[in-house]
Amino acid sequence: MAEEKNTLNEEAVATNDTEQEETIEEVFGEAEVVVETSATEELEKKIASLEAELEEKENRYLRLQADFENSRRRARLDYEAAQKYRAQSLISDLLPVLDNFERALNVETDNEQTKSLLQGMEMIHRTLLDALKKEGVEPIESQGKEFDPNFHQAVMQVEEEGFDSNIVVEEFQKGYLLKDRVIRPAMVKVNQ
Amino acid sequence: MAEEKNTLNEEAVATNDTEQEETIEEVFGEAEVVVETSATEELEKKIASLEAELEEKENRYLRLQADFENSRRRARLDYEAAQKYRAQSLISDLLPVLDNFERALNVETDNEQTKSLLQGMEMIHRTLLDALKKEGVEPIESQGKEFDPNFHQAVMQVEEEGFDSNIVVEEFQKGYLLKDRVIRPAMVKVNQ
Repeated sequence: MAEEKNTLNEEAVATNDTEQEETIEEVFGEAEVVVETSATEELEKKIASLEAELEEKENRYLRLQADFENSRRRARLDYEAAQKYRAQSLISDLLPVLDNFERALNVETDNEQTKSLLQGMEMIHRTLLDALKKEGVEPIESQGKEFDPNFHQAVMQVEEEGFDSNIVVEEFQKGYLLKDRVIRPAMVKVNQ
Repeated sequence: MAEEKNTLNEEAVATNDTEQEETIEEVFGEAEVVVETSATEELEKKIASLEAELEEKENRYLRLQADFENSRRRARLDYEAAQKYRAQSLISDLLPVLDNFERALNVETDNEQTKSLLQGMEMIHRTLLDALKKEGVEPIESQGKEFDPNFHQAVMQVEEEGFDSNIVVEEFQKGYLLKDRVIRPAMVKVNQ
């Protein structure tokens, strides 16, 4: 846009110049025209240099504008990523709490008081899981599924009859996803 | 800087111009100088307009640069604030878990199995509190402290002998801070 404008102006100046030289030449002859021309040339040089400077300034402006746009886009993406996984650090620290809950809830009992305490713990466990789910945390399914190295970590391999090969036959420790990110793979036993 | 340069150039042009007019005037008289002057004037007008355009472009560049700087600063502050309280939403959802833990752990028992289960729960509770503390969560102190409406919410007022006035005599529900932010005030009974 700016370049087009500059080119048009240069043409206008060039046309003016030619017309003027002819007029003076017709009236006063050769020698005097030299004086006039050198003054005009100086002014024209000045114009050319100003136009070059203008173009450079315009380009500098456009470059800064592009940098600005990029920086804004990058900042937005950084912010969104930070928001998406905002609670990851706390969630990672809460995984041992989930593990211990699962272990503690495995108790078998006939005692009434212990039973009622276990019920209370189950309720707390559920509240905790719900809060985590709301933030985007989901347990990874593994038992009976095909082994997937993206989600499962094989800590033991067996050859058992009655199971298809490459199937998870036992889960030692639950894995968890935060949205699309694995924050801990499931530790599993795989049938070969 | 750019303005200073422009002014110098204008002076140089003006000097050139005067010298030239005189020379032509001496040699060819009045009428012909008019032709030369109007051509020069046109070039000078052009120069003045280019210089004005240059100055405007320079100012536009400086304004954009200032906008860029502001936008960058704002983005950094937004990001830092988002990071500082990043886990607040999850933490708020975990407060009922903490409340229920405190209630459940208040059980008194002689049964060995219940005792061992309670010990397990205490361990889980401590792990949970440690994870929250690492993220910047602290319980608000209230019992025996002077009532402070910034941290305490008075749900009951009493007049008891043996206590100073405006002192928290009982805490009904724990309050919590996330760094410098109260995410839940402590619910308390105050002595008037």
